[in-house]
Amino acid sequence: MAYPYTVYRGTFIHLPRLNSSSAKPELARNQGALWVSSEDGRIKGYDWQVHDDTSFQLFLSRRGWTDADATTNANSSTKIRIVESNDVRNEFFFPGFIDTHLHAPQFPNIGLFGSAGLLDWLEEYTFPVEASFGSKSDPKNQDTDPKHTPPEGLRVYDQIVARTLAHGTTCASYFATIHVPATNALAALCHSYGQRAFIGRVCMDNRDQCPPYYVDQSADDGLNATKSTIDYIRALDPKGTLINPIITPRFAPSCSNYSLSGLGRLAASYNPPLHIQTHISETTDEIDLVHQLFPEAASYADVYDKAHLLTSRTILAHGVHLTHDERTLIRERGSKVAHCPASNSALGSGLAPVRIMLDEGLTVGLGTDVSGGYSPSILEAARQACLVSRLLGYVTDFQKVTGNSTSTGHEKLSVEESLYLATRGGAAVVDMANDIGGFDKGMIWDAQLIELGAVKNNTMNPLDVAGVNSLARRSLGKSRPVGNVHLFGNETWQEQIQKWMWSGDDRNVKNVWVQGKLVHTRK
Amino acid sequence: MAYPYTVYRGTFIHLPRLNSSSAKPELARNQGALWVSSEDGRIKGYDWQVHDDTSFQLFLSRRGWTDADATTNANSSTKIRIVESNDVRNEFFFPGFIDTHLHAPQFPNIGLFGSAGLLDWLEEYTFPVEASFGSKSDPKNQDTDPKHTPPEGLRVYDQIVARTLAHGTTCASYFATIHVPATNALAALCHSYGQRAFIGRVCMDNRDQCPPYYVDQSADDGLNATKSTIDYIRALDPKGTLINPIITPRFAPSCSNYSLSGLGRLAASYNPPLHIQTHISETTDEIDLVHQLFPEAASYADVYDKAHLLTSRTILAHGVHLTHDERTLIRERGSKVAHCPASNSALGSGLAPVRIMLDEGLTVGLGTDVSGGYSPSILEAARQACLVSRLLGYVTDFQKVTGNSTSTGHEKLSVEESLYLATRGGAAVVDMANDIGGFDKGMIWDAQLIELGAVKNNTMNPLDVAGVNSLARRSLGKSRPVGNVHLFGNETWQEQIQKWMWSGDDRNVKNVWVQGKLVHTRK
Repeated sequence: MAYPYTVYRGTFIHLPRLNSSSAKPELARNQGALWVSSEDGRIKGYDWQVHDDTSFQLFLSRRGWTDADATTNANSSTKIRIVESNDVRNEFFFPGFIDTHLHAPQFPNIGLFGSAGLLDWLEEYTFPVEASFGSKSDPKNQDTDPKHTPPEGLRVYDQIVARTLAHGTTCASYFATIHVPATNALAALCHSYGQRAFIGRVCMDNRDQCPPYYVDQSADDGLNATKSTIDYIRALDPKGTLINPIITPRFAPSCSNYSLSGLGRLAASYNPPLHIQTHISETTDEIDLVHQLFPEAASYADVYDKAHLLTSRTILAHGVHLTHDERTLIRERGSKVAHCPASNSALGSGLAPVRIMLDEGLTVGLGTDVSGGYSPSILEAARQACLVSRLLGYVTDFQKVTGNSTSTGHEKLSVEESLYLATRGGAAVVDMANDIGGFDKGMIWDAQLIELGAVKNNTMNPLDVAGVNSLARRSLGKSRPVGNVHLFGNETWQEQIQKWMWSGDDRNVKNVWVQGKLVHTRK
Repeated sequence: MAYPYTVYRGTFIHLPRLNSSSAKPELARNQGALWVSSEDGRIKGYDWQVHDDTSFQLFLSRRGWTDADATTNANSSTKIRIVESNDVRNEFFFPGFIDTHLHAPQFPNIGLFGSAGLLDWLEEYTFPVEASFGSKSDPKNQDTDPKHTPPEGLRVYDQIVARTLAHGTTCASYFATIHVPATNALAALCHSYGQRAFIGRVCMDNRDQCPPYYVDQSADDGLNATKSTIDYIRALDPKGTLINPIITPRFAPSCSNYSLSGLGRLAASYNPPLHIQTHISETTDEIDLVHQLFPEAASYADVYDKAHLLTSRTILAHGVHLTHDERTLIRERGSKVAHCPASNSALGSGLAPVRIMLDEGLTVGLGTDVSGGYSPSILEAARQACLVSRLLGYVTDFQKVTGNSTSTGHEKLSVEESLYLATRGGAAVVDMANDIGGFDKGMIWDAQLIELGAVKNNTMNPLDVAGVNSLARRSLGKSRPVGNVHLFGNETWQEQIQKWMWSGDDRNVKNVWVQGKLVHTRK
């Protein structure tokens, strides 16, 4: 905290907050200066009249600030840090992405699906890798020391945090495993990297539905182990500035009613109540199983509701096949939905009707669902959300598929809406809508600097060098894209954003900040 | 041609040719040496017994060859070039990708869709950019000199060829525009870069359906202009080694019956007959339009068949909504299908039933359909083909959607099948199944060297450096992925390929060869 403020200067693009649920998100671009306090990492103000060097110097001197990197003699003014975006390289500041649903231990399985659907995939790929995060010397899971995590597990957690940051994810809601030391290790690593995170020890005590090698010893053991991780995380980050625990029943089929109710009570026993995350209605097979296991429940959502797990701080992953009644119940409880389109398509789970959810007033964000999803990138999730929405428009009888008989048409998600879900939507899903997801005054500086690349006008006629070897011609000064975003110079700034969403990747993420701190710089 | 042979040494992965249409593609991996003649760029043989340096030296000396780069004194042996894949970096040779359908002039519009479907998108985005490839001083399109292409157009063509090569596309079937100079320029650029290409001047003479600023003056003008590009391409590459013309009616609605029949006759007038490419049954709106414009035709496919455009060298793009009768007709004519899943999803055109096409014995390859597709990468097309197939499995009533009432289930496309479509499938679609798409003896060396990256075992415990700044820790020697393929060292080689298909991009394409010549090296 060498300097009290950092001034970000250049181009800022975000999605302003919607005032009503029927309003459509639009991109907003501002150019000027925005300053962030080092003390709390929050945006203290901005000035969109600062358009050139002269007005910027005036802006600084009005506040009694000087650039800490400038070579001028120190005077009575306060030194501050300045970070600029470069217009020629088509750089802009954008809110950090929020990944509302992913499984950190599954990262080694990314891109491995086998040939079957969700339930088989859990047995074949997921449970074995998650089980490997336990310690053989502690079969009863009574140890709490993160250093007792198997080294391979630490390596996986180290990489998933580093890689999601590299893709611009400033906040992630992680499922860990059932193991206390490994769950605590994930919390410690996020804290060390500086990524905002919700860390959930996975609860699964139904021995009929879980493999014998990967199951809580009992519901009470699971509850105690969960408490133990909560204690660790609260000691690590007492104010919960970056890292917070999240109550995490895996999903209804993995849990007894006793365990579900105990977790509901545990969440409510804190002030404010703890966050909760679980899965719901990902596939039709899973729903059939829930009906069979919980015959007394009116619906899948009702299983959670009876256990007091549907709160305003609950993240429900997927929700592909929710009925209208379930969506109504979820909305009434104020619970949120993590839409995971890449995972839903890759596992063939279905096309989640996000447009219907939004129209009904549900709060929706995006999740990568690593490794049901094949990418740790929320930008890829945004892309897939658009594709899924466009395909839903094609499935002419999708009303039947989604159980929504009142809908008469389907409007595609726009690029703006998808990016809204990736930022503001995700912020609301983790119950931080007033803190992150945009560049409003008072919000926390969780942000990324995106570089689309310069448009170099090639002055050489490509045909004049037709005799030149194809490898040599590449050095002839033509436009070099950054990654796969190809700008030709005639795009509007909105079209540049569209190109970024459709073609961008981690190469376009130049810097990432969380809580005002730089936490990633592209190599 | 300094050396008569190049010996490729290391790991070779491809999809062996299927002997029957009911067989399932499987990946094959061979390790050893394979040699290619510089004279014709073809594979002259391979030896999979060469497993170490000793056996490699024996292999060379048996043939009287020495490494041209070796410092040993020249002796009586023949100097040859050696190219090795690096096992530690998980490198392997793979057949070049074949893009069976894309629109070169639309590259500047990549990632721009607006909000509507195919027909509106054509009006709003596509026709204006294509029209810009014409010369204002030559409104009647009688000029043929590629140098009279507008500079911006040349720049676009220069980039699309460079970028598709960078994504491993060794062969592409391009739609150009209606303009002769620009079509010839695209041919010249592909020839100069060394990319195998089919180059089609687009024919569109229906003034009711085409914009007034972008339409052939008459059907005969269109036919003459097409002949003119054929003449140019045949002069450029008399044997058609790399570049060949392809007859290209845009799609039925753009063309008069007179024009379609004339193009059918034009293709048949050559020996062997010229290739043909067009679109078919991309969206339901388009099909309705075709039925309205061609009331005498039994079906969309029948419009082309009546004009003798359904030949064994015909590429039909999309085919999302083909009826069973149309698929039967196409199979009987031996015509091929270019499956463009990224485009079909992005434009909301639908889910093409590739499994049904394959089971019925149709020949299918992959197309990026730039810029209906948002990516110039065939690997992305392979990924999307898997996703589309998995979603089709979910659409429980997809039989109705696809008009196939006899199908009783849906088996997902596997990763192997998708990569088969990207290589062997594409080769068959461009009627070069005996020449490209695999590493059989006698085939042409159109190949890419893929690098997945080394697995570095991190010996440092991530928690031991918990106090280390998150930026500094990245230099602690941990595993560095190449692009987004994350290997943890416990994957089988088949799983490595799965990870590549799901997470790979142009960063994994290290070198690209066409006809035995190196045409791209990653920066």
